Amino acid sequence: MSEFARPFTRPPHPLLVEPSVRAALVEDLGRAGDLTTDLLIDPDHRAQARIMSRAQGTLSGLVCAAGAFRLMDAETEVVCGVLDGETVHADGCIATLRGRTRALLSAERVALNFIGRLSGIATATRALVAAVAGTGTRVVCTRKTTPGLRMLEKYAVRCGGGFNHRFGLDDAVLVKDNHIVAAGGLKPAVERVRSGLGHLTKLEVEVDTLRQLEEALSMGVDAILLDNMSIAELKEAVALARGRAVLEASGGITLETAREIALTGVDCISSGAITHSAPALNVALDF
Amino acid sequence: MSEFARPFTRPPHPLLVEPSVRAALVEDLGRAGDLTTDLLIDPDHRAQARIMSRAQGTLSGLVCAAGAFRLMDAETEVVCGVLDGETVHADGCIATLRGRTRALLSAERVALNFIGRLSGIATATRALVAAVAGTGTRVVCTRKTTPGLRMLEKYAVRCGGGFNHRFGLDDAVLVKDNHIVAAGGLKPAVERVRSGLGHLTKLEVEVDTLRQLEEALSMGVDAILLDNMSIAELKEAVALARGRAVLEASGGITLETAREIALTGVDCISSGAITHSAPALNVALDF
Amino acid sequence: MSEFARPFTRPPHPLLVEPSVRAALVEDLGRAGDLTTDLLIDPDHRAQARIMSRAQGTLSGLVCAAGAFRLMDAETEVVCGVLDGETVHADGCIATLRGRTRALLSAERVALNFIGRLSGIATATRALVAAVAGTGTRVVCTRKTTPGLRMLEKYAVRCGGGFNHRFGLDDAVLVKDNHIVAAGGLKPAVERVRSGLGHLTKLEVEVDTLRQLEEALSMGVDAILLDNMSIAELKEAVALARGRAVLEASGGITLETAREIALTGVDCISSGAITHSAPALNVALDF
Amino acid sequence: MSEFARPFTRPPHPLLVEPSVRAALVEDLGRAGDLTTDLLIDPDHRAQARIMSRAQGTLSGLVCAAGAFRLMDAETEVVCGVLDGETVHADGCIATLRGRTRALLSAERVALNFIGRLSGIATATRALVAAVAGTGTRVVCTRKTTPGLRMLEKYAVRCGGGFNHRFGLDDAVLVKDNHIVAAGGLKPAVERVRSGLGHLTKLEVEVDTLRQLEEALSMGVDAILLDNMSIAELKEAVALARGRAVLEASGGITLETAREIALTGVDCISSGAITHSAPALNVALDF
Amino acid sequence: MSEFARPFTRPPHPLLVEPSVRAALVEDLGRAGDLTTDLLIDPDHRAQARIMSRAQGTLSGLVCAAGAFRLMDAETEVVCGVLDGETVHADGCIATLRGRTRALLSAERVALNFIGRLSGIATATRALVAAVAGTGTRVVCTRKTTPGLRMLEKYAVRCGGGFNHRFGLDDAVLVKDNHIVAAGGLKPAVERVRSGLGHLTKLEVEVDTLRQLEEALSMGVDAILLDNMSIAELKEAVALARGRAVLEASGGITLETAREIALTGVDCISSGAITHSAPALNVALDF
Amino acid sequence: MSEFARPFTRPPHPLLVEPSVRAALVEDLGRAGDLTTDLLIDPDHRAQARIMSRAQGTLSGLVCAAGAFRLMDAETEVVCGVLDGETVHADGCIATLRGRTRALLSAERVALNFIGRLSGIATATRALVAAVAGTGTRVVCTRKTTPGLRMLEKYAVRCGGGFNHRFGLDDAVLVKDNHIVAAGGLKPAVERVRSGLGHLTKLEVEVDTLRQLEEALSMGVDAILLDNMSIAELKEAVALARGRAVLEASGGITLETAREIALTGVDCISSGAITHSAPALNVALDF
Repeated sequence: MSEFARPFTRPPHPLLVEPSVRAALVEDLGRAGDLTTDLLIDPDHRAQARIMSRAQGTLSGLVCAAGAFRLMDAETEVVCGVLDGETVHADGCIATLRGRTRALLSAERVALNFIGRLSGIATATRALVAAVAGTGTRVVCTRKTTPGLRMLEKYAVRCGGGFNHRFGLDDAVLVKDNHIVAAGGLKPAVERVRSGLGHLTKLEVEVDTLRQLEEALSMGVDAILLDNMSIAELKEAVALARGRAVLEASGGITLETAREIALTGVDCISSGAITHSAPALNVALDF
Repeated sequence: MSEFARPFTRPPHPLLVEPSVRAALVEDLGRAGDLTTDLLIDPDHRAQARIMSRAQGTLSGLVCAAGAFRLMDAETEVVCGVLDGETVHADGCIATLRGRTRALLSAERVALNFIGRLSGIATATRALVAAVAGTGTRVVCTRKTTPGLRMLEKYAVRCGGGFNHRFGLDDAVLVKDNHIVAAGGLKPAVERVRSGLGHLTKLEVEVDTLRQLEEALSMGVDAILLDNMSIAELKEAVALARGRAVLEASGGITLETAREIALTGVDCISSGAITHSAPALNVALDF
Repeated sequence: MSEFARPFTRPPHPLLVEPSVRAALVEDLGRAGDLTTDLLIDPDHRAQARIMSRAQGTLSGLVCAAGAFRLMDAETEVVCGVLDGETVHADGCIATLRGRTRALLSAERVALNFIGRLSGIATATRALVAAVAGTGTRVVCTRKTTPGLRMLEKYAVRCGGGFNHRFGLDDAVLVKDNHIVAAGGLKPAVERVRSGLGHLTKLEVEVDTLRQLEEALSMGVDAILLDNMSIAELKEAVALARGRAVLEASGGITLETAREIALTGVDCISSGAITHSAPALNVALDF
Repeated sequence: MSEFARPFTRPPHPLLVEPSVRAALVEDLGRAGDLTTDLLIDPDHRAQARIMSRAQGTLSGLVCAAGAFRLMDAETEVVCGVLDGETVHADGCIATLRGRTRALLSAERVALNFIGRLSGIATATRALVAAVAGTGTRVVCTRKTTPGLRMLEKYAVRCGGGFNHRFGLDDAVLVKDNHIVAAGGLKPAVERVRSGLGHLTKLEVEVDTLRQLEEALSMGVDAILLDNMSIAELKEAVALARGRAVLEASGGITLETAREIALTGVDCISSGAITHSAPALNVALDF
Repeated sequence: MSEFARPFTRPPHPLLVEPSVRAALVEDLGRAGDLTTDLLIDPDHRAQARIMSRAQGTLSGLVCAAGAFRLMDAETEVVCGVLDGETVHADGCIATLRGRTRALLSAERVALNFIGRLSGIATATRALVAAVAGTGTRVVCTRKTTPGLRMLEKYAVRCGGGFNHRFGLDDAVLVKDNHIVAAGGLKPAVERVRSGLGHLTKLEVEVDTLRQLEEALSMGVDAILLDNMSIAELKEAVALARGRAVLEASGGITLETAREIALTGVDCISSGAITHSAPALNVALDF
Repeated sequence: MSEFARPFTRPPHPLLVEPSVRAALVEDLGRAGDLTTDLLIDPDHRAQARIMSRAQGTLSGLVCAAGAFRLMDAETEVVCGVLDGETVHADGCIATLRGRTRALLSAERVALNFIGRLSGIATATRALVAAVAGTGTRVVCTRKTTPGLRMLEKYAVRCGGGFNHRFGLDDAVLVKDNHIVAAGGLKPAVERVRSGLGHLTKLEVEVDTLRQLEEALSMGVDAILLDNMSIAELKEAVALARGRAVLEASGGITLETAREIALTGVDCISSGAITHSAPALNVALDF
């Protein structure tokens, strides 16, 4: 799949992608298949078509789209115009397809749905990345992803120049309010986690106040999520931390506020909106 | 699941919903499970929490959220404050949960992701429905849905007061440009379809011009998709059709243009944006 | 798969067929595989074999059989003698196979089981179609299919010249007695359905009497199932309907009664027996 | 499930049956579910219904039908009138159901399809068993079963009083013509099998002539399939074997010929027709 | 797959092996894939590597390992040095791989895990087989296998020169103590089994005493499991049986005791340890 | 499941465990189910049985065993004598079961296979943990696990008092020789990883020499794997590192060498043998 993606975007391996694409095709074919196409298009009819963008954005999902056309007919040729992770212009050609017309028509909607959604996320991410350009602050995603598409949506974030947060509940610890309360305080919580955690799993703590921040820093945690802090608080947090932990600003990040937040010196700003509320990129298939 | 939904929204049967919810939980639990919760929360600790909305909108997805909490722990109690299909206000309580704290914390994100996404769609649909209120025109969805979630996103459209278009390539025929070209014209295309189609499958034809519309009407098709027509053309289309076919206006429908389009007298306006570009409803779990 | 089927029979896409064929092979291989063949046949031994019919009939299922041999060994060559949808004569050769002997022997029973069952259905359908030839009446199937094989059995009906009824509970509405009673009459039932149904889904009503028929016609439904009516009633029904709805005669259709029923002028006659009680076509593999 | 079956019919464990029943329900519900029922029946409406037989036969498949109603709604009550393996009379009540009307209507067709097909097989088996009653000859099935339903169809054979042959290619060895040719004769074939076969797997050889039979007997195989032998040959085969191997008569077994064949003294007669060509038992759901 | 295995080891068909290998790769790739390799290795970089054994043993599992490398990248070349079922020496080269470096690195651990475990079993089996060499006694396995890997572990036993016992609860009957008690004695138990069992399923009885052995022999069962008998008892058992049933010695079989037990003349000795407690063969991938 | 496990062993959630247990039961039941039990045991017969250990060890897998008995029959009662993570003595009772005899007999082997294998791992882990007791060094596992059972085998390591290393290729970075070579040195490799890695993923580097160790330390990596170093080198490594990175000694760890290695002051010692070569704990079911 790496043939369809810009270096360093790290598209998931086909063993991971193919089941999602196959399921999406089967979801669309239903039990009776593509009635219209099967009734009207000769099985041997061949055509050329182009995946076009109707708007400017950052491409993501071509790896899925190419998979969709090839699963529908292994002989379909897919030639890229733009790679996942690159900018596509309005009316730009994303890829050229050649093959049996039936396969092109029957896979069209699924292919476009993948590109539309994932490019929407990549485009929203890229905008946020651009907003903080030069500050050294990273844009990171959250677990606020579409059920069943997390792996692909995290990939879209990378296509947009963002970085990935946890992939699930199991690849890092994130201690929040309720955990702290249940454990009887931040310190006992961190100690309890450490007594059971493997040496290759990071530990982040969510804090609301600078006092909690100090406590977390004193415990030597790997990262600290600064929840909904003001610019002033964030600045002070950076000063307090002096690089002893990764600082992640979270809550209310928008295109408008991002740069100011980044300029406080936090290491990352995390945004749920880039995955859960990004409008789809408008793409179409032209014959 | 009907206990969590307003009458007539027709939530999909648990046999259809459960696999999606289970897959989403497993996607989040990964291989090592909820590290933080399992390390910090006593298995017998119990709590009460409330699913809250941070914004006004139309609820959808409580059927999935309730399923998520119950799959995590069958003894979790879910008491509704609002039903799928109803309006939830900013800071309104969607549901109250009582049960083991572990289950509440471990299922939280998946449950909120379902509600956020589906309520986003329902809310966008409801806005469009409101825009055309009183005109008699229906808002319908498209196949521009998230791969793997079509059934649920079509349900969200119903929760918002919209109606469903095709669920896939197999439950109705929609003849488009390329099909017409391949068949040598609209008339031979329709004839060819009819010679093979079962008597319980509807036939819609997409037209770009009034001349094509007349041809389609003369063929007695069930429905006609009017693609990107101007208000003037739509009015004329309605006059030409005189109820002989369902007329569906499509292309460039926005909250701003919807009412004027509806007032032309078309039967339906279809919108991809309500599914592919609806921002998520902001929901949270408060302990 | 269209290479193994007569035009217009519309074999399901390999993405839909392959899982069934694969599951059938795995069901037969069990955990230890084909003991006899693996113990006695050299892996490199090659052979030629022919799928033969021991009786005359209409072929269906070659798409599955070819899939079975190829899944067992991708290099197996399958050359058709007859296509799905065509007539095969007693002692006629359906296809010639060339490849590794192990694959031919291990896939044999599964391949023949698919052809036997589906050709049985196609043959029964063809007989009914022949019985009503020239009347303009269509033979349609029902949902009385083998659990798990509906898609393929509906395809077999098409191979036999029949047409498909609903594929499931979800692609058309069929209002029956119990629904009418629950809704408080035919009229309120139809109205309630219409208030919630999408514009691309057809609505059929089952009626037992001519009075009900008149009521259904007055509601403008798409199709009406005439349940177990006498020839006289059917004639009157046709006269009453004057083409305002598709009329489907159902109940007690046999090869003996079909023509008389068709001659009443009904649009379709539906038969469960063509799927649930068709004897298998007798086919074998000859080396 | 044993609560729905006569002793000794050995219904497969629910862990094995449930996936088939669930798949059949999902196949029928499709993506949009039971449109008619969901639109017309109140979720809390309750009803009683009876599964009735329209013809006399031997029941099989109630274990699946009960599973279907319960999977649709766990609170549905199923009370048996007849058990799998027992005789049901024309217009006899198979079971009484009480529960939510929606569940009864939505599961109806799947439940009846299982009972119809499996009872058809049980009934055909029972007829053959009756034909050979008192001879001591067993009726056994073959691998000529519907793809995906082998386990259930073998159970239906047991319900009809028949016995099971191999369940697949892996639970016994059956050496046929082509294997013998490939191995260079019956003797080397049997020797080669024995050198690799576990001590708990039986070995049957198919023979066409009495000379082959003698060779097989001299090898001490467990069972011998006598393929398409005349009554005279079968008698001689029995005399030759003197109980040294189980003798199975195969080929052209019909209700007419079965008794004469059984009276030759063979141990079993095997029939593919009881599984592949049994007409369904006519069953219905009455409210 | 037979290209990677010595004749007569009968590797399971790829249709049966591939799902296990695919699942193991997906288990290792998780959601984010091979982070290290994807970040550091160029997608087009190619390499050669060798699967090496660090110890002497009997090879098994190359069929899985080859599958793993090919599933990761279909163009990976695998050239065998040793076949499944053959002896590999310490520092011997098992196979040479050529292909994309990413595929080699990402599939490495899964491939080695399969070879390590299965070769461990083959090696332990071979040692036991060697211990009884020349006695005519077979080494057989049990159902004490790793959950999910039975088919492959039974294959490993064959690679080591052992023979397979039952593959599951369904391919032979093994009557044990509790069954005998429940049935009211060995005789009624055997009679009851026979009245319901198909003619191609073997019947073994477990006995603890010579008296039970005599009873079992008098019933003409196919095989008798002699549980934890002394050498003297085993000798007497062989004398009593005089070849009328297969005798299987079980319990406490070790490399030290095996030969003496075999010399009693029993037909088989069964060992759970060869599957459940065999240490893995030490294998590695050298670039 | 936590009811069957000692606190802090963190058994995987039933949503993760159940599919493995179900698959193991289905693997054992095959197509025809438990022939012996179904033929001989009355469905309503009830019994009590005890899971006994025949040897001393550390228990793991009761969560799976309990699941197996309950999946076979939801009414089976399981009462613990020992919890996962606790010591069980030779002839100690692990759990008492009460329920239908059929369920106890049919689930027996699967339940014991899980306990045997996982307790074997826990026992081997516990022995290594005991060997380093008081040194402050942790015992950690590797990815050398049985294909398909990684999650459970990692749990068994925790039951034995060990800690978990990576769960897969995706939850931490481990840079090895080949990666370093491909990246042109350790420094560029670490830099390249960091430029793409999320802030919640740890980075470990494998080194063979103290010089490489110094380079790795200078890069500020999270952990360093010291591959096959001598005791002297390990001591020097600890001195060099001064706590700046977690040090993991790997290679040739045995019960004999572990303590001396631990006493060098390394943070962890990792062992593949505790998962890939642990002999099963001898457990049985006594009625």
